[in-house]
Amino acid sequence: MKKVAVIDIGSNSMRLVMLEVTANGFKVVDDMKETVRLGRGLQESGMIGEEAMNKAMQTLSLFKGVCEVNHASVLAVATAAVRKARNGADLLERIQKDTSIEVTLISGEEEAGYDFAGVINSIDLSDFVLVDIGGGSIELVLVKGREIKEAVSLAVGSLDLTQRFKLADEVSFGQEEDLLKFLRTAFAKVKWLKKEKPCVLVGVGGIIRNIGKIDRKRKGYLPDIAHNYKLSKNDVAEIYQLLKSKNLLERSSIEGLSKERADIMVGACAVVRELMEYTGIKKLRTSGYGLREGLVFKHYINQGRRFDDVLESSLQTVLDMHHENKEHAYHVYHLYDEIFKELTDVHKINGDFSKINKTAALLHDIGVSIGFYNHHEHTFYMILNAGICGIDHRELVLSAYVAASHRLKKFRFNFEEYQLLLKKEDKEYAQKAGILLQIANSLDRGQVSAIKEVVCEVDKKTVMMRTIKARDAELEIKDAMQAAEMFKKAFGKELVII
Amino acid sequence: MKKVAVIDIGSNSMRLVMLEVTANGFKVVDDMKETVRLGRGLQESGMIGEEAMNKAMQTLSLFKGVCEVNHASVLAVATAAVRKARNGADLLERIQKDTSIEVTLISGEEEAGYDFAGVINSIDLSDFVLVDIGGGSIELVLVKGREIKEAVSLAVGSLDLTQRFKLADEVSFGQEEDLLKFLRTAFAKVKWLKKEKPCVLVGVGGIIRNIGKIDRKRKGYLPDIAHNYKLSKNDVAEIYQLLKSKNLLERSSIEGLSKERADIMVGACAVVRELMEYTGIKKLRTSGYGLREGLVFKHYINQGRRFDDVLESSLQTVLDMHHENKEHAYHVYHLYDEIFKELTDVHKINGDFSKINKTAALLHDIGVSIGFYNHHEHTFYMILNAGICGIDHRELVLSAYVAASHRLKKFRFNFEEYQLLLKKEDKEYAQKAGILLQIANSLDRGQVSAIKEVVCEVDKKTVMMRTIKARDAELEIKDAMQAAEMFKKAFGKELVII
Repeated sequence: MKKVAVIDIGSNSMRLVMLEVTANGFKVVDDMKETVRLGRGLQESGMIGEEAMNKAMQTLSLFKGVCEVNHASVLAVATAAVRKARNGADLLERIQKDTSIEVTLISGEEEAGYDFAGVINSIDLSDFVLVDIGGGSIELVLVKGREIKEAVSLAVGSLDLTQRFKLADEVSFGQEEDLLKFLRTAFAKVKWLKKEKPCVLVGVGGIIRNIGKIDRKRKGYLPDIAHNYKLSKNDVAEIYQLLKSKNLLERSSIEGLSKERADIMVGACAVVRELMEYTGIKKLRTSGYGLREGLVFKHYINQGRRFDDVLESSLQTVLDMHHENKEHAYHVYHLYDEIFKELTDVHKINGDFSKINKTAALLHDIGVSIGFYNHHEHTFYMILNAGICGIDHRELVLSAYVAASHRLKKFRFNFEEYQLLLKKEDKEYAQKAGILLQIANSLDRGQVSAIKEVVCEVDKKTVMMRTIKARDAELEIKDAMQAAEMFKKAFGKELVII
Repeated sequence: MKKVAVIDIGSNSMRLVMLEVTANGFKVVDDMKETVRLGRGLQESGMIGEEAMNKAMQTLSLFKGVCEVNHASVLAVATAAVRKARNGADLLERIQKDTSIEVTLISGEEEAGYDFAGVINSIDLSDFVLVDIGGGSIELVLVKGREIKEAVSLAVGSLDLTQRFKLADEVSFGQEEDLLKFLRTAFAKVKWLKKEKPCVLVGVGGIIRNIGKIDRKRKGYLPDIAHNYKLSKNDVAEIYQLLKSKNLLERSSIEGLSKERADIMVGACAVVRELMEYTGIKKLRTSGYGLREGLVFKHYINQGRRFDDVLESSLQTVLDMHHENKEHAYHVYHLYDEIFKELTDVHKINGDFSKINKTAALLHDIGVSIGFYNHHEHTFYMILNAGICGIDHRELVLSAYVAASHRLKKFRFNFEEYQLLLKKEDKEYAQKAGILLQIANSLDRGQVSAIKEVVCEVDKKTVMMRTIKARDAELEIKDAMQAAEMFKKAFGKELVII
């Protein structure tokens, strides 16, 4: 598999992400971060300091070694600190000379474009405002109909705000006032911010992910997944309040807060809170995908074009990564989808469960990659942890449960654990869907597509599934009939398969 | 990867196991079973009945389809029922004609030999008695110094016993008496059984695995792993008592009991109990590996020679299957092993933890195959579920815990959950080992073997790790030093790395 190393020389930290790239996506195999803080003191001196410069060189030297050993293609970019510093070009030259790594200095607008590429290929949203809070800049993007409509980069980031308004430790009322005034003035210059009304803010970058983590810890929220996590304006306001009410030492008691970012969190969180206040946007989603992922999408995947269907691409990637039998996966999905649709009046499930149905059916066997025996349980674990994109957390948990129900074996699932996430009616759906998926999987038990289609006929007492066969399918039908008792209990009708 | 389908035409059931084979092992990717019961009524008529014959043909036709779709090499054997039936050859001929599958009829002694191959390559024991209870035969093997010393096949199996002594439903005292007398007579003919004194009985076959499952359910034992599970003679006696005290219907209340085997379990469990009684062997281990796995080992792996080191081969297979960076894995193991040994007087851990150390160090990154973020947690899950051989359950759980501790990230582990398994001193070992593995992993953080060796110098207040470097290793040392605080707390000494 092709390996790509993305190196991101930011104002706060330098990062290397090592990826394995497939046709439809990629998988992270290593992630290294060094808090170099190239942006420190930049506002006053206009220069990257000697110490930070040396640290950057040491870090890059190590990164280079890692790239070499992995035989990885290297994609290296520098952002705000190097853009702003008078000696930024010197640093890039030194890097080129000492390590032969070609670093591309990208503009704020390009950065915003990569952020967009990261998000649009990983979250299924059409209209939103994107914000990326970096150490030395803030990118704002207006997205409508999955297209960039506006993009701007403000040349001030969390590191700058922290230094300028002295927010690292105890924050005084006066400092906070000045900060908020400054932010409002900055936002006011972005004319479209107030005019446009998308109802979701998508937050990119480590700092915003950290706000999400703090929120999950506060709520005891499961699953603990950073990508596509939802917060309300009120959640953000509460966390901001919590952060600014504590000095640096006291902040260490906040569960989930990253130590390395404890000093710059007040300024960063203020940006998010104030932005939601200013625009009236009430919902925040944190994105695990941003600049680095956007770079990979743009340069290595799908010829730089964005995906039409985020979930589909993501499921393809997961199937590829785990060497799944795609023919069987898609055939079970086909049979399941037929059954689910034709039995609408029998299962009486309303609402849009299409993403869940697809994810569960396509990935039902994914756990085999851990081990065949008990693979339904491994499937549950893997669906929750495989980093599937284009689906929200509730849908993900339900997909995992339905997929894990694809065998006769019992699967214990504690709905209570996910009570913050699941709706009242979800339990009924999941249990019924589990039975139907079990039947669909059985109907391709031999994985030879012996049964091509299923047509369901429903009468008062019976559901008759007529199978259209390509070959003998006795085992398939017999296997499927093992669900008859459960079927009767759940749907009140006898199951007949011929 | 090469695919192999093993088809086993037994007296009770027919089975297909689909495997992916590597240099050092294999991975199950599908498993199909049909309870055909070729052996039913064989004692009376000497013939396989028409109904069973037809069912066998249908099942094989399906199996053939599965083999074709998978482009698998087929290895098919028939055992007791076909051996005994006067029309056994007719069945094989019909199979050959209709499906082109060449079935090899193996003798009882050959069956015992394959059982041995399955066990000796998957359980790290030198001296034991092996018993395989099939539907139509019982194999007994004496193993000493990892070699077969004696092997015998009794031409009676659980199906025969069930029919002969009417054990399927309610069991009367008289029936049981007759059964036990019959078994004792049969055992008495195997002269070496009483003479030899290995202290472990290794049980092969689905029925014995099912006895293990019932035992785990009764005890609330974790982890729920069938291979290498340990029972005492008393556990077996209790389960036998439980089974025979219930009629067929009542047996369905026994948690863990396989429905399809509920009728033949009394007879089968009597064999195990009586064998332990007769030989005086007090310990039973259930094996997940038997005839089918033995066939694969003999025909496809290591040129048919048994492994010298079961654990090593198994770890290699797991690393191969998940495309791990073996160089990094072995280098971390090397560094960890050095540190662990040199700090004996510091950690003061006694006892043999070598298998745990090796497993944890080699597989610490295995969870990356599920997802990079939180991969230490995935590592824990995978080590428990990857089917690692050559290590017992206690060692496996401890390996998973130590491996999951290889990052700075917290890992929550509930020792209570495994209280039936872990010894009092294990917690201290696991916590200390976790810190040392974290340091060793950090010392190869860049995965470029920057640090070749570590030499530890211990004085009253300090542990000094002197690194021998192949290249600059600043990141490695810095990363490792993040464990200094934990190190001080656990070992009472300052950590210095130069």
